[in-house]
Amino acid sequence: MRSTLFDLEKTISERRTADPALSYVAKLTGRGRAKIAQKVGEEAVEAVIAAMAADRDGLVGESADLLFHLLILLGDLDIPLDAVLDELDRREGVSGITEKAARKPD
Amino acid sequence: MRSTLFDLEKTISERRTADPALSYVAKLTGRGRAKIAQKVGEEAVEAVIAAMAADRDGLVGESADLLFHLLILLGDLDIPLDAVLDELDRREGVSGITEKAARKPD
Amino acid sequence: MRSTLFDLEKTISERRTADPALSYVAKLTGRGRAKIAQKVGEEAVEAVIAAMAADRDGLVGESADLLFHLLILLGDLDIPLDAVLDELDRREGVSGITEKAARKPD
Amino acid sequence: MRSTLFDLEKTISERRTADPALSYVAKLTGRGRAKIAQKVGEEAVEAVIAAMAADRDGLVGESADLLFHLLILLGDLDIPLDAVLDELDRREGVSGITEKAARKPD
Repeated sequence: MRSTLFDLEKTISERRTADPALSYVAKLTGRGRAKIAQKVGEEAVEAVIAAMAADRDGLVGESADLLFHLLILLGDLDIPLDAVLDELDRREGVSGITEKAARKPD
Repeated sequence: MRSTLFDLEKTISERRTADPALSYVAKLTGRGRAKIAQKVGEEAVEAVIAAMAADRDGLVGESADLLFHLLILLGDLDIPLDAVLDELDRREGVSGITEKAARKPD
Repeated sequence: MRSTLFDLEKTISERRTADPALSYVAKLTGRGRAKIAQKVGEEAVEAVIAAMAADRDGLVGESADLLFHLLILLGDLDIPLDAVLDELDRREGVSGITEKAARKPD
Repeated sequence: MRSTLFDLEKTISERRTADPALSYVAKLTGRGRAKIAQKVGEEAVEAVIAAMAADRDGLVGESADLLFHLLILLGDLDIPLDAVLDELDRREGVSGITEKAARKPD
């Protein structure tokens, strides 16, 4: 299995305390949680728009941006990516994400 | 490396053509791309709100929902998760995601 | 000038303390600010999607939903619609919203 | 009744064909519907975040931005603000927006 997201999580963790003049992660983190959350929301909007425009390259790029900023947000709350993957595994393992999700109102 | 996201991608791919009465993935896929994209946007909004409320358990759950629906959306455009991870690797490899991202206006 | 939005603001204000079993405004308000904010975010996502699909009727409906929930959210923070319109007038009056907005990074 | 939103709608309509170097409305319109829709989504996210932070001044400003960009988006699809207000009046008149909305799944 490739380690891209875990490598990225580690890189983000190291850069959080770097020089904000040199590191985007440090700069964004320094602006506070609201700004990080805002970026997650914005990148999701851009992904939605790329999908609606059937812009496959655009969706690849926006999905990368979304995952990157989601990892920064999780890091800001000291939540490891593993906790999110555990949750996905738990849903699939216990009852199938299909059934789990099917119970949610949409 | 754990394989959660790739396993989930495979599960989603198999369920896309399942019975919509039994499978959330099939049901959502049947409602069309706009509905899938809508779910991605909504889960991102919920993740933003959980983060702003400092609700760590909530953010874990919403991040899982966001990743799940993002994988459904990528699947709907026949984009493999690997393409998104390739993009993240490429950014980090070429110039560092820090510098790459730092050039983006916020 | 028509009074739709002000009438709606007044109606919302009156219904905030109504029976949640009978009033959507009361029910949503009772679920807390995060749920109201979530609805604003969701309706905006739906408006974005309707616009991208060039669905004019859809955008009319989603814009109505968005304005309705924005008024509920403003009410929840005791912000009168007039304060938002004052801000729009102020921008236009002082320097033109064009120039004001043009200074914002996008 | 004050005419702020209708004045703004008229101003936006006039500026759509102005010099993009001088007019934000013209510049944004020139970038296409996806960019206008993106701004609506982004301003909604910022309004959500301001509300969650209980930042009243912030929510006033973000609501103004949201209304401004929603009017640009409506204009881009040739939808008059009146059509949205008609829809709000219709809902309230026919059955009460409370009951109408209460039937929506959340």
